[in-house]
Amino acid sequence: MIQELLAPINDFLHCETPGRWVDVALENQDIMLIDHANCEKKAAASAMSLMTRYLERTELLFCAARLAREELHHFEQVVEIMQKRNIAYTQLSASRYANGMLKHSRHNNELDLLVDRLIIGAYIEARSCERFAKIAPYLDHELSRFYTSLLRSEARHFQDYLALAQQYAGQDISERVEELGRVEAELILTPDQQFRFHSGVPV
Amino acid sequence: MIQELLAPINDFLHCETPGRWVDVALENQDIMLIDHANCEKKAAASAMSLMTRYLERTELLFCAARLAREELHHFEQVVEIMQKRNIAYTQLSASRYANGMLKHSRHNNELDLLVDRLIIGAYIEARSCERFAKIAPYLDHELSRFYTSLLRSEARHFQDYLALAQQYAGQDISERVEELGRVEAELILTPDQQFRFHSGVPV
Repeated sequence: MIQELLAPINDFLHCETPGRWVDVALENQDIMLIDHANCEKKAAASAMSLMTRYLERTELLFCAARLAREELHHFEQVVEIMQKRNIAYTQLSASRYANGMLKHSRHNNELDLLVDRLIIGAYIEARSCERFAKIAPYLDHELSRFYTSLLRSEARHFQDYLALAQQYAGQDISERVEELGRVEAELILTPDQQFRFHSGVPV
Repeated sequence: MIQELLAPINDFLHCETPGRWVDVALENQDIMLIDHANCEKKAAASAMSLMTRYLERTELLFCAARLAREELHHFEQVVEIMQKRNIAYTQLSASRYANGMLKHSRHNNELDLLVDRLIIGAYIEARSCERFAKIAPYLDHELSRFYTSLLRSEARHFQDYLALAQQYAGQDISERVEELGRVEAELILTPDQQFRFHSGVPV
């Protein structure tokens, strides 16, 4: 079941999360959870920013509102777990990951920018799921179950974003998807000064 | 049942919505719905901005995330109704209402600002419910049912915000609640150049 959910995600992504990230994550579970809470909140905020900018795209409004609600629910679940474990919710700087992709988005026209934002959204969702699956077997029972449940509920988000990107582009987007996939993989495979949920290889 | 939900809301607010607002709203239902969709989205965004600023206030995080999810669900419902009625979701400027209150918030320290934001949130929620109830009897069956359902599900939001304001202030806030209530009532009772869901008396 999990393997069936993961297959399209692994097909979509250009690389696997390096083992070194998993090792560092296991040693820094507090930071992982705090940053994970931030990621859920930012995923919701970024869906909502699409809802403010593209009023005339009705399917996008519905899809983004639904995703935002789900991410907010997951945010609550992460904060609950933090609370149970007495992990203080401190301020953490964002990783380089999302901005590292967004700075490659095309600003020449509104449509290209929208398509790129949707493709990037798809990569962020897919990578999150790949990491939930990657780390779940090494976590304690509660966190392992939680990350597996997130994988189940978020596994199709990347396809939702991708389908919208394809629909709005009005032409084949596979080349652009490839390009952004290479950017994504580089952010995952290169050394990264800080450990975060979406960081590269922690140095 | 509706009267029981409304009694604390009407107690809290310093004035009733003028009949003139209802008349103009009935003549401008498209604008009302578009602005209502915007209001649900902004209510969610403003709850999320609290979730970003006050990480150490765990009850606030949970309360705001839950409210944001509800408002997003209502946003989807408004957009569905607009879609059924072929109402295009055009850009509409915001009313003076929320900013008209926020500009009175105290910026001298972080705590006073938080308490004021929560009290203002309470007034916005309470006024929305009062208006749902006020206009529902004059709307067609579908909208009337919808606005009554919103009243039911949002009726306690203002108390949630108010309880948090009281808890965090650590001292009696009734005087500040009164002050901001007078500001709110003035925005509702004075002439307003534009018609919106939260506008004053349309000229």
